[in-house]
Amino acid sequence: MAGRPPAIVTICSHSALQILAGARREGLGAIGIVDRRREAFYSIGLGKIVDRLIVVDSFKEVCQRSFWDRVQSVAGGDIVVVPHGSFVEYVGPECFRELDAPILGSRELVEVEASQVRKMRFLAEAGIPTPKTYALEEVLEMGLKDGLYIVKLSGAKGGRGYFLARNRREVVEGVERLRRQGLLREGVEVVVQEYLVGVPMYVHYFYSRVRERLELFGLDIRYESNVDGLRRLPPAYTAGVEPSFTVVGNIPVVARESLLPKFYEYGLKFVKAAQRLLRDGIVGPFSLEGVVNDRLEYIVFEFSGRIVAGTNVYAWHGSPLTVLWWSEPMDMGRRIALEVREAWEQGILDKILS
Amino acid sequence: MAGRPPAIVTICSHSALQILAGARREGLGAIGIVDRRREAFYSIGLGKIVDRLIVVDSFKEVCQRSFWDRVQSVAGGDIVVVPHGSFVEYVGPECFRELDAPILGSRELVEVEASQVRKMRFLAEAGIPTPKTYALEEVLEMGLKDGLYIVKLSGAKGGRGYFLARNRREVVEGVERLRRQGLLREGVEVVVQEYLVGVPMYVHYFYSRVRERLELFGLDIRYESNVDGLRRLPPAYTAGVEPSFTVVGNIPVVARESLLPKFYEYGLKFVKAAQRLLRDGIVGPFSLEGVVNDRLEYIVFEFSGRIVAGTNVYAWHGSPLTVLWWSEPMDMGRRIALEVREAWEQGILDKILS
Amino acid sequence: MAGRPPAIVTICSHSALQILAGARREGLGAIGIVDRRREAFYSIGLGKIVDRLIVVDSFKEVCQRSFWDRVQSVAGGDIVVVPHGSFVEYVGPECFRELDAPILGSRELVEVEASQVRKMRFLAEAGIPTPKTYALEEVLEMGLKDGLYIVKLSGAKGGRGYFLARNRREVVEGVERLRRQGLLREGVEVVVQEYLVGVPMYVHYFYSRVRERLELFGLDIRYESNVDGLRRLPPAYTAGVEPSFTVVGNIPVVARESLLPKFYEYGLKFVKAAQRLLRDGIVGPFSLEGVVNDRLEYIVFEFSGRIVAGTNVYAWHGSPLTVLWWSEPMDMGRRIALEVREAWEQGILDKILS
Repeated sequence: MAGRPPAIVTICSHSALQILAGARREGLGAIGIVDRRREAFYSIGLGKIVDRLIVVDSFKEVCQRSFWDRVQSVAGGDIVVVPHGSFVEYVGPECFRELDAPILGSRELVEVEASQVRKMRFLAEAGIPTPKTYALEEVLEMGLKDGLYIVKLSGAKGGRGYFLARNRREVVEGVERLRRQGLLREGVEVVVQEYLVGVPMYVHYFYSRVRERLELFGLDIRYESNVDGLRRLPPAYTAGVEPSFTVVGNIPVVARESLLPKFYEYGLKFVKAAQRLLRDGIVGPFSLEGVVNDRLEYIVFEFSGRIVAGTNVYAWHGSPLTVLWWSEPMDMGRRIALEVREAWEQGILDKILS
Repeated sequence: MAGRPPAIVTICSHSALQILAGARREGLGAIGIVDRRREAFYSIGLGKIVDRLIVVDSFKEVCQRSFWDRVQSVAGGDIVVVPHGSFVEYVGPECFRELDAPILGSRELVEVEASQVRKMRFLAEAGIPTPKTYALEEVLEMGLKDGLYIVKLSGAKGGRGYFLARNRREVVEGVERLRRQGLLREGVEVVVQEYLVGVPMYVHYFYSRVRERLELFGLDIRYESNVDGLRRLPPAYTAGVEPSFTVVGNIPVVARESLLPKFYEYGLKFVKAAQRLLRDGIVGPFSLEGVVNDRLEYIVFEFSGRIVAGTNVYAWHGSPLTVLWWSEPMDMGRRIALEVREAWEQGILDKILS
Repeated sequence: MAGRPPAIVTICSHSALQILAGARREGLGAIGIVDRRREAFYSIGLGKIVDRLIVVDSFKEVCQRSFWDRVQSVAGGDIVVVPHGSFVEYVGPECFRELDAPILGSRELVEVEASQVRKMRFLAEAGIPTPKTYALEEVLEMGLKDGLYIVKLSGAKGGRGYFLARNRREVVEGVERLRRQGLLREGVEVVVQEYLVGVPMYVHYFYSRVRERLELFGLDIRYESNVDGLRRLPPAYTAGVEPSFTVVGNIPVVARESLLPKFYEYGLKFVKAAQRLLRDGIVGPFSLEGVVNDRLEYIVFEFSGRIVAGTNVYAWHGSPLTVLWWSEPMDMGRRIALEVREAWEQGILDKILS
């Protein structure tokens, strides 16, 4: 731990305020990569939540080696890149995979997350209950039992383009519509998933490799446009408006305490599956995203292999569950920075990077 | 106040994290009674939020005298049992009534709460506005005016089995269904209650016998499966799905400030009614559960005579109303512990126990 | 800054707990004007969040010069009146305009806010996207394209009387109904506004004239009766119940971080418009109230030119965005008091008053 503490580096969006503020609270450097059009806003945090902003015209710059030389020289010491959903979306999955910089966490887990098919298979192999999920091709060939389904696209675009369908015909029509809207670019996977009746709950975890323990952090509900607006209207007024699922925000929630042991158990299953199945295992934040039905079962329809924006509801203060682990305000951004600081102090920083 | 401060004892579920953590924050002992299947999860809190876990294979053990001798010897001093909704549900109402240990608060109030009929009568006698409520027998004999009703079962099962009905026939069909599902065991009361159109608000109170004052603590909204999920779906997709009301979580909310004096007044009415009508009066947390309609009237359809899980949304930090009473973070768990500590320091611990 | 620090004065309702508690936290005086029927409740805060309560039988007293002499003598120094939605509603717009006391912020902005027509024009002139809005007279004369509209009344009555309509006929019928209910008194303006499909988000800002900067404070969602209750019921059960939009509370929410630069930009446009168009410019809290659609556009359908009750969700603790500006808990009430204190210390108190 000789020398200067490492600097946390991330792209300014998604959960960057939390990540960068957390770095400073733990005494680390905090460097934000910011799109020129958002520079004015993030400059507010200069000296308070971010040490330096590196302005780019296009996030493609991030994919070049020379970019990281520049970051390195700004940092004047070790850097640790903290990825988030927008990070991966902005630079693209190939660039992320090959990024010429040390990343906190598992690149492979983010790759698995990016594929709807691999993602659901991973959850099933972990032993976590999941809804029935079909590849689009399967549905086209084999047909689909009448029921209620949600059709999803791969990529961390916050639910954009997702739609509901009740049978093969509605799946086909919806996919056709996506194609016309240009949302079905090359390489985008489409899966057809049983729609679970119940209420969504997004569970935030942190797996510490330094302390070798899993922490249950908090929960949120997504706030989605237009579906959470439509529900405020009497049906007579919404005829003809198609529901959409673009995530625009998050709302705090607590779960019945009797659900927490189950959430924790599923988190442990997830960690063990990652350790068993992935080259670079798991470290840092992740999230399980599922539905609690009225028999109090939790069925997981998605996961994030990195920090989720839902943790923003607890930025700064921490969640009501924080008390399980900490005696001071601890949000996910600060928790990440703490892991980096502790690893660095113990000389095992490379153990948590990929 | 010679000797060791008392230990708070509760069953690990519902709001136990808050209750036990609160005990430690106030310098009291914190003992959790935990089901073997949940031991792993609650062990996380050992040394941080709980001093000792007493593992049981069945909560029936709690009903034996010898169990409390064991707790006593673990505690090495006075103990105070803090009940909650799951506590009463797990051990059963008879066991709770006869529990061979000192309980914070009024056993009788919890008894009143357990009966839908006595509960509504208590609220009416307190002078708090309530919806029209009929015993099932009444409806069967006398019929029911067409309208909108919710049919409720006694017991603190978090809304499981509740259903909507518009007339006598739908009540009868629903009850038949419950019977088939085995939810209508011996001794379960059924009431038919006018469904109030408006929005639910759950108001948390604490009545301190040590300070002789009523504190307004916070508010929450329940998050119920599947009803809060169904509302996200267009009606065309939900045909045939029966709404259900299983509470799976809670969401924080604040009320218009102009409602607070009314909430406070109703809380005072509740306290006075308990002091007037109950053998052992009232002390500690309780909750009014009602609906605010669009004329800003608050009509109460239920109460809890002990801590509600909705207070979990403010665990650790306290609610935006905390400022009314405290200059530091105060959640309901800590508030309970403070009452116990102050009573113990003043040598009047028995005044708050039953 | 010789002598006693100024006292904050407000009417006890809306966000008064926050405003008065904030004053005390910043070392200022805190004087509440309270309706006799609410005196019992606000007395709880005496010595903790309020120094003195001035009890009135009618808020008309506030409109008399002698009343302010009395306040002055109670304060024993400078006073600063902090207005809020209920303040303006209780005393009436004319009384507010002529109030014989120094007010924090711009009287003119509150006036603009009180007129649905001027309000929408102000937003448009600021360059902020707004929904199509028609005066009732326009609709009566020119007709209305079939679509989805919300009909709104002027005044800060928290959404009471608002209704939905799909065409001219439904507008006329609804207005007729309002008239029968006595909600259409002299001087109440009616506008017919395109109903935006998406999800509502209320954004809280503070413009500091002392520090010459705009602060983005937090966000909330309104909790409205009965519309947020109706959505929990299957359509079959709600036939015949008219949706209503009375605000009864607020729920915390965070926005996608990528929306924040846009919110901040619109806040700046608002500030610049006020500086350009209003006699007394802008200072202190305001709020933009709009809808985020599924293309992540923010369209603003209303604003408040003073503190909004939605900031109550962050009372005491501050919001997750507070970290952008402050390293300690900062709610809107305290922020107001800080502005007053800093202005007073710098001898420029009159710069922030009108």
